[in-house]
Amino acid sequence: MLSSLKRFLIGRPLKSTELGEQKLNKTKALAILSSDALSSVAYGPEQILLVLITVSTAAFWYSIPIALGVLILLTALILSYRQIIFAYPHGGGAYVVSRENLGINPGLIAGGSLLVDYILTVAVSVSAGTDAITSAFPSLHQHNVLIAIIFVLFITTLNLRGVTESASILAYPVYLFVLALFILIGVGIYNIVTGHVSPELHTPIGTPVAGLSLFLLLRAFASGSSALTGVEAISNAIPNFKDPAPNNASRTLMAMGALLAILFSGIVFLAYYYGITPSGEETVVSKIADETFGRNFMYYFIQGTTALILILAANTGYSAFPLLAVNLAKDKFIPRMFTVRGDRLGYSNGITVLGIASIILIIIFKGETESLIPLYAVGVFIPFTLSQTGMIVKWVKEKPKGWVPKLIINSTGALISFIVTLMFFLTKFEQVWSILVFLPIIIIIFHRIKKHYELVGEQLRIKPGQTIKPIDGNVIIVPVAGITQVVENSINYATSLTDQVIAVYIAFEREDERIFEEKWNKWQPNVRLVTLQSQYRSIITPLTKFIDTVEKKASENNYRVTVLIPQFITKKSWHNILHNQSSLLIRAYLLFKRDVIVATVPYHFKK
Amino acid sequence: MLSSLKRFLIGRPLKSTELGEQKLNKTKALAILSSDALSSVAYGPEQILLVLITVSTAAFWYSIPIALGVLILLTALILSYRQIIFAYPHGGGAYVVSRENLGINPGLIAGGSLLVDYILTVAVSVSAGTDAITSAFPSLHQHNVLIAIIFVLFITTLNLRGVTESASILAYPVYLFVLALFILIGVGIYNIVTGHVSPELHTPIGTPVAGLSLFLLLRAFASGSSALTGVEAISNAIPNFKDPAPNNASRTLMAMGALLAILFSGIVFLAYYYGITPSGEETVVSKIADETFGRNFMYYFIQGTTALILILAANTGYSAFPLLAVNLAKDKFIPRMFTVRGDRLGYSNGITVLGIASIILIIIFKGETESLIPLYAVGVFIPFTLSQTGMIVKWVKEKPKGWVPKLIINSTGALISFIVTLMFFLTKFEQVWSILVFLPIIIIIFHRIKKHYELVGEQLRIKPGQTIKPIDGNVIIVPVAGITQVVENSINYATSLTDQVIAVYIAFEREDERIFEEKWNKWQPNVRLVTLQSQYRSIITPLTKFIDTVEKKASENNYRVTVLIPQFITKKSWHNILHNQSSLLIRAYLLFKRDVIVATVPYHFKK
Repeated sequence: MLSSLKRFLIGRPLKSTELGEQKLNKTKALAILSSDALSSVAYGPEQILLVLITVSTAAFWYSIPIALGVLILLTALILSYRQIIFAYPHGGGAYVVSRENLGINPGLIAGGSLLVDYILTVAVSVSAGTDAITSAFPSLHQHNVLIAIIFVLFITTLNLRGVTESASILAYPVYLFVLALFILIGVGIYNIVTGHVSPELHTPIGTPVAGLSLFLLLRAFASGSSALTGVEAISNAIPNFKDPAPNNASRTLMAMGALLAILFSGIVFLAYYYGITPSGEETVVSKIADETFGRNFMYYFIQGTTALILILAANTGYSAFPLLAVNLAKDKFIPRMFTVRGDRLGYSNGITVLGIASIILIIIFKGETESLIPLYAVGVFIPFTLSQTGMIVKWVKEKPKGWVPKLIINSTGALISFIVTLMFFLTKFEQVWSILVFLPIIIIIFHRIKKHYELVGEQLRIKPGQTIKPIDGNVIIVPVAGITQVVENSINYATSLTDQVIAVYIAFEREDERIFEEKWNKWQPNVRLVTLQSQYRSIITPLTKFIDTVEKKASENNYRVTVLIPQFITKKSWHNILHNQSSLLIRAYLLFKRDVIVATVPYHFKK
Repeated sequence: MLSSLKRFLIGRPLKSTELGEQKLNKTKALAILSSDALSSVAYGPEQILLVLITVSTAAFWYSIPIALGVLILLTALILSYRQIIFAYPHGGGAYVVSRENLGINPGLIAGGSLLVDYILTVAVSVSAGTDAITSAFPSLHQHNVLIAIIFVLFITTLNLRGVTESASILAYPVYLFVLALFILIGVGIYNIVTGHVSPELHTPIGTPVAGLSLFLLLRAFASGSSALTGVEAISNAIPNFKDPAPNNASRTLMAMGALLAILFSGIVFLAYYYGITPSGEETVVSKIADETFGRNFMYYFIQGTTALILILAANTGYSAFPLLAVNLAKDKFIPRMFTVRGDRLGYSNGITVLGIASIILIIIFKGETESLIPLYAVGVFIPFTLSQTGMIVKWVKEKPKGWVPKLIINSTGALISFIVTLMFFLTKFEQVWSILVFLPIIIIIFHRIKKHYELVGEQLRIKPGQTIKPIDGNVIIVPVAGITQVVENSINYATSLTDQVIAVYIAFEREDERIFEEKWNKWQPNVRLVTLQSQYRSIITPLTKFIDTVEKKASENNYRVTVLIPQFITKKSWHNILHNQSSLLIRAYLLFKRDVIVATVPYHFKK
């Protein structure tokens, strides 16, 4: 039943050879890999204005130069990542690039912060989208957490079905959002050009503003840069592209950069020209749409697609997290299970872990994850900086043909990313300090896990020339609880393997011991019986002591000890709750604590 | 660590021979077995007045004849149960008496309703006691459920420590409560006799009251009878008494009856003489204490001990439930685990199940379990009626010396109990109907469980003259995932048992298959290797198919198939999460679904 539910939700299993069909073309890839970056247009411009308003509305014109700064940063990042795509065609991303060029620890810093970051992406974007929806239907507001969790479960299920299927479903909302904003920007500019908007609404560029500090401008710039989170996703996900993967990925990246640049500058410009003041109740995009269209169909179309894309931004995390986890797991920094492909050829363990972790975050923060945004932004800019720096080192070391322009591009990217990172720490320390605690812990765990795998590998390896001494014989111990068919079945099996069979009976009362011995000797005179008395009504303690004695003697003679546990299996599995589960306990205890083989002889009931 | 926490909470394990030391003397037995009955004095009289006030305060004098009725019922019950104690010295109680004399189903009705009833006792009395405490400290009121749960956990732990220990701790509050009420009643009567209380406060006995129906009087009587819940506890718990158990139990029962009669009539009389009107805010006992002492130390002493005894009333459930469960389990109507004595010689499974079930009830009803009181009372009077009826049948059938007076006593008891039961159904049907749904369901489950155990017993039994055919040989299948020390260890073991060893390798890629075969043939040329390809990356499916094929062939030759699973055991148990747990899955699947022996060969890492 459970397995047919699984089939229904995620579909039939796919053969390994069907992997190629699960790859993405450019249109779909753009939709699922850029939803995070594009969605940030919905809140990035607002972040800039929210900082500037702390001085005065006259300072709003500074949003234009700040936006230009963000665009320069965007260009540098896009060009840098384009170079990374071609340099690391098997899916680079910050982890691989930093590790290869800067060393293990910088790689782990990049990988660790991205890993945490994708969880934050999912939690933050789903919470934001849920907020947008429940703002429209206030009666649902009290169920925010539940609704957010349902969205996470939905997106997780989609991703477990496989990348192409989720891409097919998610492509529409992303393109609708882009279309909606294009119409908004187009109509807005048309209105301005045709003189329908009063130029009085905004202060001209260059108006002097009292009390504006460089610190504040930097802070506004850092806030605006949070709109660039998500641009690294494509470089992580190259293996998901159709061949030729690097070319397709690079074109998709350029397209995303162009879209992001247009939408971002359009919104910033309209906000400036309309003189929009950000407020807690209404988003900047909503105000612009209201000014442009009034509350008609187009307004609701823009609001609806914005809410949707905020939720779908989570999907970028689902594309990038499992692939990053595979890279870390291949290098043995996280458990190997992340490298296993599931029924639908997705890395299902990564997808599931991401879903669970983000649900936990949503529950802990009761769906109010907005305060995590700066943390999430700084968690992106650290790996940005590291990967660009890695590329600088690569160019300087390898000096391939035409390396100088490449070096310049990556150096610009690295410098700006570094400055933005610094600014986050300088201007928003109280919101981002926790990353300085978490990152070292995560990196220590990474190293511990790697060390463990190395130890295991070493202990598993067969040294050349090493030979194992054949076993000379076997002793089989059969704990028996009575004279039954189940015991008979086990004794029959044991005697077919060796002559050294010992049945062990544990008596709680002295009386019992004698009676059982008599019965046994009549029934199985050829099998040796040992009875043990348990004053404390425990089975494991006297049994273990006895096994230890036998084991000691056996190892002296190069014999091995097997404990054979008779077990009946009831016809319906829930019937097992009516029976003592001591055999399970005994088995687990012996396996972990003693060096004996434990075998279970099942006796299946027919009724 | 878990085990030392257990030691700290419940103490060192006791030997079976120490059982005698865990038995109760009369003083302690009275304390722990009568707390339920005695505590009902705190609410029984109030229940009568609450019914009478629906007519007028003039009707309050009827509380005196009603109380006389309750006292007659009490006397009949005490004398009847005294007879049961001697007739069933191994612990009778309603279940055993009804089953032996009236048949299985009446016995199960009595047993089933008592089983549920003890759970209700714990939930209701702990909730009531918690309410009494949080009424004194209103700031705690919002934590009612949590506090009640903590009390349940505390009482559960005490009982897991063993009966004498819990008796030692619980005896003080019970006797303090009795002392407090004795002082209250004594001082109250002294005040009345010395003329300090105005006789104007109450209407004289015999005053005609308009609008008083027989139905109402019966309802008041039924409500007052709820003060008698708990008197059956001693007859259930005879095995807990020191020898001679029946004599000690009988004396304890008489003492409890006398105390209950004195306290009950004293409170009813004072309430009548003082003209106390029950109200939602303050209990009748509190009002009497206030009238008698004012709000001085004695008042708070009475209130405090009352709250305590309400909570401790739960303990009666803990004494009676496990013993009833043992009786039902011995007759195979409930799982056998209830017959096992724990470390401290108490029936720990019964104690634990009772604790968990009552916590669940408290959580479901959010600590407001007052509405369950009638249900709980009717759940007591059904077994009362059945056990007295059973005794009637016994006397009539066996006709021992002097049986006529015994018959009369039990007949009176049976008749009155039956009338009270009927009255509950007639006057409070909306609160007790659910027992008519639950009881049949519980009885059906009892029969299903018994049937299952009988089927199992029959299948386990070795038929005389039946012989089992010795096995002719063994095939051992070893699933291998690589060429490692762990595999070498398992192969070494397998070849020591039989020549028929087959290693199975499951390849996810066709390439893999060939490479592995080559390596294997170089490494273990004498062990046959079978490689299987798994297109869907599942291990269990191809492995099971292969095992089925081998199994079919083997059973034709009277061979048995063993699947030997190589498993490494990491040094620290939490390290296991870093490794695939597929061996556990394979083992469980094969044991339940296939008729093969499953053995695990552990390889313990040293680092």
